[in-house]
Formats: sequence, structure tokens, C-alpha cells
Amino acid sequence: MSTPGAVTALRVAYDGTDFAGWQIQPGVETIQGVLERALARVHGVATTRVPVVGSGRTDAGVHALGQVASYRPPTPREPAVLEHALNGLLPKAIRVLAVGAMPSTFHACRSATGKIYRYRIVNRSLALPFEVRHAWHVRAPLDRGAMAEAATALVGQHDFASFASTGGQNKDSVRHLRVLELRTRDAGIIEIEAEADGFLYHMVRNVVGLLVEIGSGRRAVNDARHLLEARTRASSAPGAPAEGLCLVRVMYDPDLGF
Amino acid sequence: MSTPGAVTALRVAYDGTDFAGWQIQPGVETIQGVLERALARVHGVATTRVPVVGSGRTDAGVHALGQVASYRPPTPREPAVLEHALNGLLPKAIRVLAVGAMPSTFHACRSATGKIYRYRIVNRSLALPFEVRHAWHVRAPLDRGAMAEAATALVGQHDFASFASTGGQNKDSVRHLRVLELRTRDAGIIEIEAEADGFLYHMVRNVVGLLVEIGSGRRAVNDARHLLEARTRASSAPGAPAEGLCLVRVMYDPDLGF
Repeated sequence: MSTPGAVTALRVAYDGTDFAGWQIQPGVETIQGVLERALARVHGVATTRVPVVGSGRTDAGVHALGQVASYRPPTPREPAVLEHALNGLLPKAIRVLAVGAMPSTFHACRSATGKIYRYRIVNRSLALPFEVRHAWHVRAPLDRGAMAEAATALVGQHDFASFASTGGQNKDSVRHLRVLELRTRDAGIIEIEAEADGFLYHMVRNVVGLLVEIGSGRRAVNDARHLLEARTRASSAPGAPAEGLCLVRVMYDPDLGF
Repeated sequence: MSTPGAVTALRVAYDGTDFAGWQIQPGVETIQGVLERALARVHGVATTRVPVVGSGRTDAGVHALGQVASYRPPTPREPAVLEHALNGLLPKAIRVLAVGAMPSTFHACRSATGKIYRYRIVNRSLALPFEVRHAWHVRAPLDRGAMAEAATALVGQHDFASFASTGGQNKDSVRHLRVLELRTRDAGIIEIEAEADGFLYHMVRNVVGLLVEIGSGRRAVNDARHLLEARTRASSAPGAPAEGLCLVRVMYDPDLGF
């Protein structure tokens, strides 16, 4: 039914700062574009690129520790050889962390059963130079208790239409938000971890934007529930900026071993 | 004898990746150049820059958490106002962490009584995209015990001529290396902390280069002592690359409170 190795999966980490996002576009450098060109060289094909499918698009400036891409290899390559060759060709801002030989039914986007994102906030008067590429700098002290309480109201299966920016491709806006947790770290770092069966367009950034408005006292804690019930983006908070966001993990059927 | 506030001191952090080092040079962007232009604007002077003195030069790509610069303010400015105004003008890769009103005898370089540098090594097969701007990626497993033992041989007051690159301005190459310590951190990170009354040109990078050769087995542990005694750069190891190095702190007389 499905041939092992008919599809190759790549787990990819990247610093999104200097790229115009994941998705290939003419005239700008994208993660997908760089990866597809490197694959053409590694597989020794005459075309300039080997097309891949990502688990989803990440916007310009968004990072990844575990984006997943899949493609049909035009020539056979051992996973270890492929990983080594790709990392030799790719810029240091993009690393292939794992390569898997998958059944022919595998598809990085359609086979995904869930995703984990992490959003980082530097919450003090000054953000250090090495922090600003990977965090949103919010100067005003945030009420973490209020943010955590509001986050709890969003966990579960809901229609997240209020948290979807226009431009997304999803018609059904019901998602199961399994986890939405604030993790306080030293020296004014707040990390928000979000796990769901899937996310709508800009959903994590819109959720974080709301939590920061609540944490700064500009909105009440129960606005989270009210906004969810409104099912419209009309009265939503502005989305949090791209640089704080990181796609940490894409989940698949554990039997696939990837 | 000395007027308080006659000299202003700035403690500065920077990500050196995108700059041609600390020292002002024509045609390239340097930390000192950017800072001097910002000071001219903050002090509202007609000149394009207000000259500053750094505690020392840092090379292109080297970072700082606590570089110190001093200058004679052309107009009076409250430290807090100055800090806020400078951080509003400077790029996010450069931050002013503290401003001090110092006596007229203060000089960022000549008044320094010591410095602390930290060198970071990622020691595993793969370096993540967010690590590579601030660390040297050494793939081969390093023998940390051998490196720590070699480091011990270098601690103390010695003639460090073997560890000085040509191009430095120091005639006397005797320095007191107070601390040279390896700190192992999770996930294959080695940090080397070095504290001395002063460092010769490229001294930390040359010391780290030797320790890595010892850690990788290309040299014996007692080569550290032999090299020190040779007092010549002739048989030294190649210096470690700039991106792993960070100037953590510059020390002054504690009475100055800076």
C-alpha cells in the first residue's frame, strides 16, 4: 500500500530573521526556496529545485526548531548522507536536524496531528542585543497572573475565528488548543507555549497579542472568553510581532517514528 | 582635583556580528562610530560625532555585555536622560546599560583594573541556527578534562608573548591571568571564562585556540606550559574565531561605583 522511503521527511530548524518567511516567493529569499535549491544539488538533478511541502507556512521573521518538510526524492539517498550533504550546503541559519524515510502516504502538512509553538517576551526596561532577534520586547511590567488566568479560558476545543487573521486558507475555524501555558524564566523572560491539533493563520500571535493587552491592564481577564465567544476579529487585540515566535515541533502518528 | 561629572562613562552591550569591530574606521560601520554619532545628536552639538575612548578595541564579530566607553560631555545631561535618549537612537544591536558621572581623571582604558571575557563553544555535531552568531562550532568531541588541566597551567602572572598576535600596541607582555575556567553547560556548550588585569592583542582567542587543540588531542596538555615558556608566537595554535568571544565586564576602582 505504501512504500517505505517513497517520501523523505526533513526536520528543519531556522533563524527566520533574514528570510521572507517559509513559503517560496519570486524575488526574495525564503527558507523553502533555499532548501529546494540545496535538494536539487544533493540529488544531482537538472532542475534548479526539488519541490517540498512544509507542515505549514511560517511568516517572515518567525523561527523554527522543528519545522517539517516532505518531498518525493528524485534519486535514492541514505538519510544520514542526505543530512550531512544538506548541512554542508545550507547557510548556518538553516539546519536539517533529522531525515526520515517515510511511507508514500506521508505528507508534512496533511499527516500532522498537532503543533507546538513557543512565543518569547522580554519583559523589562531593556532588551539585550542578543535577545532582540528572538523575542518581543515589552517594556511595561506584565501581570503574569492575569495572563495565565486568561490563557486558561482559551484552552480546549473552540471556534477560534476571533484569533484568525484574514488571508488564511482555513474555512473551519474550530481548533483544539491542548496547551496554553506561561512559563516565567529568570531575568524578565516570559515564554508562552501553545499546543493544538492545528492553528489558524496568525493564531498564536493574535492570542499572545491579547494576553499582553490583558497583562498590561489595557483589557480585563474575562475579555479572553468574551472575544472567543464573539467569533469575530473586529474587536481583537493587535497581533504580537513575528520575531518572538518559534515553531517548536510538528507531531505525527507515533508509529511513523518521526 | 577632579570634578564629578567632568567625564561620562557608558556601559555598553552589543551584538558584534554586523559591525566591523569597536574602533572607528572610515567606510565601515563600527560600534564606536555609531555611538559617537548618537552622542552628537543627544548632546545637540554641531559636530557629527562626540569622540569617546573605549576600554579597548574589540574585533569585528566580537560581542560585549559590558564594554565601557568614556568621554567629556560637551553639554550637561542627566545620566538617566542620556541613557534613555541613546537607547532611543541606537540600533537594537547596541544598548547602553548604564551611564555614570565620573571624576575628570577617569579614562575607560587607563583606569581599568581588569577585564572579564567569555568564550563560548558549541561542541556537538550540529549547531543550531540561533547559536552560531555567538559561539564557535567545534564538531569533534573535546576532552574537557584535558582543557581544564591545560588552563590551570596558564593561570597566574606570566609573560604571555606566545599568546599575543602581532598588531597589538602592548610592549610589555606580562599579564596576571587571575581566572581561566571551563564551564560545562547542557547540550554541548562549553564556556571559557578569562579574567586578567589586562589582555594582549587576540590573547583570549589565542588561548582558546590552544585549549581546543589540546581538547581535540592534536596537542598534549603540557604544551600549554611549554608554549608559555617559549615566549614566541611561532609554534602557537591558530586563534579561535571572533564570534565566540564576548567582553563581559571591565573593572575599575570600586570607589568609583561603576
